[in-house]
Amino acid sequence: MHAFVTGGAGFIGSSLIDRLLADGHAVVAYDNFSTGQRAFLTAASRHPAFRLVEGDTLDLPALTRAMGGCDTVFHLAANADVRFGTEHPRKDLEQNTIATFHVLEAMRANAIRRIAFSSTGSVYGEAHVFPTPEDAPFPVQTSLYGASKLAGEGLIAAYGSGFGFEGCIFRFVSILGERYTHGHVFDFYRHLRRDPTRLTVLGNGKQRKSYLYIGDCLDAMLLAMAKTRRVIDIFNLGTDEYCEVNDSIGWMCERLGISPAREYTGGDRGWIGDNPFIFLDTAKIRALGWEPRLNIRQGILRTLDYLQQNPALLEARA
Amino acid sequence: MHAFVTGGAGFIGSSLIDRLLADGHAVVAYDNFSTGQRAFLTAASRHPAFRLVEGDTLDLPALTRAMGGCDTVFHLAANADVRFGTEHPRKDLEQNTIATFHVLEAMRANAIRRIAFSSTGSVYGEAHVFPTPEDAPFPVQTSLYGASKLAGEGLIAAYGSGFGFEGCIFRFVSILGERYTHGHVFDFYRHLRRDPTRLTVLGNGKQRKSYLYIGDCLDAMLLAMAKTRRVIDIFNLGTDEYCEVNDSIGWMCERLGISPAREYTGGDRGWIGDNPFIFLDTAKIRALGWEPRLNIRQGILRTLDYLQQNPALLEARA
Repeated sequence: MHAFVTGGAGFIGSSLIDRLLADGHAVVAYDNFSTGQRAFLTAASRHPAFRLVEGDTLDLPALTRAMGGCDTVFHLAANADVRFGTEHPRKDLEQNTIATFHVLEAMRANAIRRIAFSSTGSVYGEAHVFPTPEDAPFPVQTSLYGASKLAGEGLIAAYGSGFGFEGCIFRFVSILGERYTHGHVFDFYRHLRRDPTRLTVLGNGKQRKSYLYIGDCLDAMLLAMAKTRRVIDIFNLGTDEYCEVNDSIGWMCERLGISPAREYTGGDRGWIGDNPFIFLDTAKIRALGWEPRLNIRQGILRTLDYLQQNPALLEARA
Repeated sequence: MHAFVTGGAGFIGSSLIDRLLADGHAVVAYDNFSTGQRAFLTAASRHPAFRLVEGDTLDLPALTRAMGGCDTVFHLAANADVRFGTEHPRKDLEQNTIATFHVLEAMRANAIRRIAFSSTGSVYGEAHVFPTPEDAPFPVQTSLYGASKLAGEGLIAAYGSGFGFEGCIFRFVSILGERYTHGHVFDFYRHLRRDPTRLTVLGNGKQRKSYLYIGDCLDAMLLAMAKTRRVIDIFNLGTDEYCEVNDSIGWMCERLGISPAREYTGGDRGWIGDNPFIFLDTAKIRALGWEPRLNIRQGILRTLDYLQQNPALLEARA
């Protein structure tokens, strides 16, 4: 495979690149370093089959040039700032919807048809069926992030129908593990490092969420891409369990040996468009032979260990 | 109501404007006249409560200025060229998705929260449930047109959740009637006028479609907008029946007193992304007390009569 990875310097992108290189594939990473980290590509940069192109997905000519010679695109670049959509609605439109259109047009210009896309369980809005399957009732969007990713999904599926594109759309729960740089474990740990005596929790802490470890996520993506041919296929990726935000805090505090006073901002959701219950049905990807090796607790603790070993990451965003 | 109607010079927009003015509302029409027709606004232009602003939905500053003072937006401007999406993919993205984002941003800048949006039954892709309800299984997009409208729906719903917008998303079947300027009745009649001895039909003619008469469509839209408050509500609009393309040809030929030889291009769909079966469940809008007055046959014949009386429309696009 000659892979092109947008968001190649990001958490998932850089982890995928290391895996692809180890598996013997050639890789071009494309990243504008708005949130990506050069340090994540240190190992990859030493590999002869790796090339980094610094560029923006909104720059279609540059994107088209960079993609030349590749045969498979992993489109992972995105605005992943789920919480702050209402502060800058254009950001989701540009970085998630228009950027995806550009990726598809660059592929078309280069006669590349295979694509993997990182979508999100947020496209289900506030689901009424749990665990939520890929063909759950037609959802109503509740966040600009979810809406922008759904728009990206629609474009990819239409390119499948109209131009013979093939590949996979992955609806992720929150992914965590090594190189994780945003999300609740990151936020909580950063606050607890500064003040281990108290922790502010958005909402009532009873939001039920599902998480997946990065290694398991990559296994699923590569398996699905290897098995899918001639269609755009859609897969939920997650664990077959969920936890409360309060559970997660408990596991973290136990590991850290602290007992902060918890202060809840109240309400059943953390922010506008926050989904109080995310739990995806993963029967479809499991039917391909995949299963996650880490459960949610293990994934959270491994993430915490990584952050403790890499305090510079926390300071960079503090 | 002080209504702002994008696509105000179009088929549905201009018909809506006449109805709104007759009902005593003030109206601003916004149109770039790319497909809209000045003649459709002749009557409206004589009304003191009517104002026309010539502009493009992609021009956000102009759109924002034009919307000032209005309290309800009917966003009908769109690229309605369902068939030719793959020839110019950017057109659907710009005119249906980005334009909808601009409408929402212009509303936000003017503190307007009420919106009606013309979506399409095409967002169901190739449905598996008939008649297809609003909460049918999560669809896979099959056309750039459907994908771009779904993206518009998602944006509107997210603005509902994030900014308190309210109103209705209408998923139309094909609308026909007076001022109808594109679609199968238009295409067939134009060809039959030139050569009544033969007719080329895309696909096998067995595609099953549903149609709704413009007057019934407007009744439904205005009823739903009057009853909906504080949410973004989604309604299918259509008749409780469908017909084959061949039925439609038969009714038209009977009315015209001709018997053309039918030549089929073959296959079960007319073009890439054509949906061989569209039939929407309209129980939700009917529960508000609405029902269509014309059936499909009546709607098609009324459309044909209108086109016969307005041959200039056919020549303009010939």
